[in-house]
Amino acid sequence: MSPDPVELRSVWKVLDGRTSEVSDWVVVEEPLEIRVQGEPLAVIMRTPGHDIELVAGFSLTEGVVPSMDDIATIRQCRDGDTGEENVVDVTLAPGVAFDPSRLRRNLMASAACGLCGKASLEALATRARPAGPGPRVRREVLATLPSTLLRAQESFGRTGALHAAGLFEPDGRLRLCREDVGRHNAVDKVVGRTALDRLGTGDSILLVSGRTSFEILQKAAVAGIPIVCAISGPTTLAIETARAFNITLVNFLRGNGMNIASCPERVAGD
Amino acid sequence: MSPDPVELRSVWKVLDGRTSEVSDWVVVEEPLEIRVQGEPLAVIMRTPGHDIELVAGFSLTEGVVPSMDDIATIRQCRDGDTGEENVVDVTLAPGVAFDPSRLRRNLMASAACGLCGKASLEALATRARPAGPGPRVRREVLATLPSTLLRAQESFGRTGALHAAGLFEPDGRLRLCREDVGRHNAVDKVVGRTALDRLGTGDSILLVSGRTSFEILQKAAVAGIPIVCAISGPTTLAIETARAFNITLVNFLRGNGMNIASCPERVAGD
Repeated sequence: MSPDPVELRSVWKVLDGRTSEVSDWVVVEEPLEIRVQGEPLAVIMRTPGHDIELVAGFSLTEGVVPSMDDIATIRQCRDGDTGEENVVDVTLAPGVAFDPSRLRRNLMASAACGLCGKASLEALATRARPAGPGPRVRREVLATLPSTLLRAQESFGRTGALHAAGLFEPDGRLRLCREDVGRHNAVDKVVGRTALDRLGTGDSILLVSGRTSFEILQKAAVAGIPIVCAISGPTTLAIETARAFNITLVNFLRGNGMNIASCPERVAGD
Repeated sequence: MSPDPVELRSVWKVLDGRTSEVSDWVVVEEPLEIRVQGEPLAVIMRTPGHDIELVAGFSLTEGVVPSMDDIATIRQCRDGDTGEENVVDVTLAPGVAFDPSRLRRNLMASAACGLCGKASLEALATRARPAGPGPRVRREVLATLPSTLLRAQESFGRTGALHAAGLFEPDGRLRLCREDVGRHNAVDKVVGRTALDRLGTGDSILLVSGRTSFEILQKAAVAGIPIVCAISGPTTLAIETARAFNITLVNFLRGNGMNIASCPERVAGD
């Protein structure tokens, strides 16, 4: 069973000058150490739950492995003393090469010279290809996605502080929803679940509850997702990444409005 | 002169079934490589502008150096080809020790064993002390901070996608406001500016426009800021960090309401 992503905490609530002690739902945040072949690779802050999916997605979108076939097992370790499950170890398939120091350098996205947005896109191009044609989706369908995602968010209503990522079919049906304190983690959980199930994402729509930065578009590009939607705005580099990787980027998806920053041909009118 | 943190991009705006091509303000996101003694240490995605402050703040709050006295210079390098200014080099004062691989490990927050929230707090305790008594601030003063910050945000109104951090005096006057695509970068810019000016933060209030996660509280703890306020909610680990480091944590600061999760004694009633 997945741990509860929110917990009750006692806080002092002040309203119109009156103070009372109340119990309030708070989103859980804990570090997770990702190890590859027993070697510590990175520590990320995340909301516990769906950790195997998270590490599967992280391994793909951050370039630890090019495909799930390169992974033999993903195993969560329980600490003997505390019972905490904050370490996940990835074992690679026989014969798969692994250079932890090269990978750590990549995770830091460090470039030897002349770093800029263009360099970030070039680095990404070594491990992601432009999205395929993908589906054509009606505007009316896109407009329904935010309310569908909100209904699927188990914990948001209790805390108002959890990000969500949802993967949708071209007809607007929700395939999968995951929540996390980190926007990028929610995307990794969705990508990871899909990869563990050996399902494709080339016909799917990703909706994120927040904004779209480079990191989100990078993960979508590696996963081959052709349409990325968000309730909030994009960054310049997110737009450039979407255009470079043939991804339809839809922002400010609210009510009957939306802004399309890239590849509008996948959005069909009336 | 600081570069403009927002730029115009052409997008297709859909509203009530009609599509038009418009120019929209988009928040700028570019990578910044931080070098220490010429050695690449980390790459962060940030909104250009106030980069020296950002690197000064990052150096302090992420433990590159314990104090500004350990830094000789912080210098921005211009790429000869592109004219981009996406590399900043930190030169340490004579005699200051520097071990890049140890530091990279720390930045990954990796622990050899049994990683958990408690371990994160213990690691933080090696470089941050509990906040001093700090000021006592009236609830009415706290309630005015969000509107003051919003008025000071130069670019938010144009994009709706920039995070802000403001440093306030106990009487509610704004000392400093910085914006960034990253919540933590905005805090680093504020902390960095204050450190470069050799000003203390022991009597100040930090307000962030978004949520408070562990990372934000960690930075406040290292900077010795006694009161942290936010428009949105906290995480469990943020509350635990605030309590461990004697920081007053105020969330959901909206209208006449707020939730106080830690050290309520610094908030005065009527």
